Amino acid sequence: MVKREKLDAALAKFYEQGPVSNRLQEAILYSIHAGGKRIRPLILLETLEGFGITLKESHYQVAAALEMVHTGSLIHDDLPAMDDDDYRRGRLTNHKQFDEATAILAGDSLFLDPYGLITQTDLKSETIVALIAELSQAAGTFGMVGGQMLDIEGEEQALTLEQVYAIHSHKTGKLLAFPFKAAGIIAEQDSDILAKLEKVGLLVGTSFQVRDDILDLTASFADLGKTPQKDLTAQKATYPSLLGLDESYRILNDSLDRAEVIFQKLKADKGFIPDKILEILERLRLYA
Amino acid sequence: MVKREKLDAALAKFYEQGPVSNRLQEAILYSIHAGGKRIRPLILLETLEGFGITLKESHYQVAAALEMVHTGSLIHDDLPAMDDDDYRRGRLTNHKQFDEATAILAGDSLFLDPYGLITQTDLKSETIVALIAELSQAAGTFGMVGGQMLDIEGEEQALTLEQVYAIHSHKTGKLLAFPFKAAGIIAEQDSDILAKLEKVGLLVGTSFQVRDDILDLTASFADLGKTPQKDLTAQKATYPSLLGLDESYRILNDSLDRAEVIFQKLKADKGFIPDKILEILERLRLYA
Repeated sequence: MVKREKLDAALAKFYEQGPVSNRLQEAILYSIHAGGKRIRPLILLETLEGFGITLKESHYQVAAALEMVHTGSLIHDDLPAMDDDDYRRGRLTNHKQFDEATAILAGDSLFLDPYGLITQTDLKSETIVALIAELSQAAGTFGMVGGQMLDIEGEEQALTLEQVYAIHSHKTGKLLAFPFKAAGIIAEQDSDILAKLEKVGLLVGTSFQVRDDILDLTASFADLGKTPQKDLTAQKATYPSLLGLDESYRILNDSLDRAEVIFQKLKADKGFIPDKILEILERLRLYA
Repeated sequence: MVKREKLDAALAKFYEQGPVSNRLQEAILYSIHAGGKRIRPLILLETLEGFGITLKESHYQVAAALEMVHTGSLIHDDLPAMDDDDYRRGRLTNHKQFDEATAILAGDSLFLDPYGLITQTDLKSETIVALIAELSQAAGTFGMVGGQMLDIEGEEQALTLEQVYAIHSHKTGKLLAFPFKAAGIIAEQDSDILAKLEKVGLLVGTSFQVRDDILDLTASFADLGKTPQKDLTAQKATYPSLLGLDESYRILNDSLDRAEVIFQKLKADKGFIPDKILEILERLRLYA
């Protein structure tokens, strides 16, 4: 709980320097404070603590930067030209609360600002450069945005499981892998451990997307905070549509098992303390 | 001419690593290769040479990153929810050539990718961090995007000259000031010279916007490559609408005079070689 508050403080502080446009600032903070689960920043912070790092403001700033990119992507994904969603996290989406132009610009800000926030940390310059390189790669053309484009291209298409995996590993997986790897970079771990953290990230990314697909099919608006069964309406190929619900539950939990095995091995070999991060992963499980 | 080709090569090379989505890549390159004047990257490169720096690939990469942010902003500015333009640089705008979703994502990529490109340079880590800090501040909430929001808020409003200046200094000025200041950062100039370069940038930013306002009123579609008199249609407060055309020409040329004086003083005091950069500035002049 304290972590969430410190994270929110880091987010608020960045925008405290005084807005150019009050409206833009209001729109950004509307979505920032929409009460998401903050799972990406929490993964970063818990993984850092797993490496025995004592958290300081800089770590919250990096976590805040990651949440900014994620929030920007949600604002743009909800736009009429994209998924056309009216609700997100139980509240009106940004463009419904404000308007489309404001929502486009709020998202743009949340893509352009976080790199500057990372430069404001007191981390070593080399660490800052490595974090920005990873975040940019995970978020842009070769990551999240590329995956979002694939997702749109795939609508109403008969996709193979490999194609669905390619969509999700980019759209969701890369930005979920970032906090694991970023923690390793900040904790100055070697390339072998960074590779393991990336592997964990991709597994968690897969489980996250399978979970999302399952919930889209099974959850109510009240559970979801947004319109359910959007995938069916958009005729999207999903894990449940390709493999059925039972197999989707299995893949979700199997991916989490495999991620947890990697952390247990990091515990045995490197003294990593996995308890808190395993708690987060356990909360992602779903059962038929 | 060689500079432009090397710049285009740096832009192309970044996207050569193999696309996640061919469509996204195609949309990005469509706007990147739309044949803009490349004035921002050329300012960076000519200012660097003015400091006696021999240009190398890293400098072209920073210049390319700047052009990417600029191009992303043009794609989003042209969207139906924003300025709703069908033509840009004499060709269909991105969302007319592709579609709105693709144009939103192409712009997003061009905001998220360039920071990663800057981390790929062989500049010192401290220099990379300083450049990214400046670019993020110039482009995001506290710069270009903030100014674009002010611009939209100001439509159909009676604005003062101070308000018009606030819009333009953020919307256009900050990203035009960046290449002057970035050159100073790369050339490891002291804070006094960096402040002078920022001042030059803001003057050139003003002249650029006044010029744009004048041309919107006086130029034809063929000259402009886009629909003229959009400002009148949108009832935007502009320099000509507030001060008349004659006074606008005067402000344009006066701002350029003042920028040129700063460069002449840098020549006398610090041995800066201003010839090429002054050529660029001279090309911005307009006369009634």
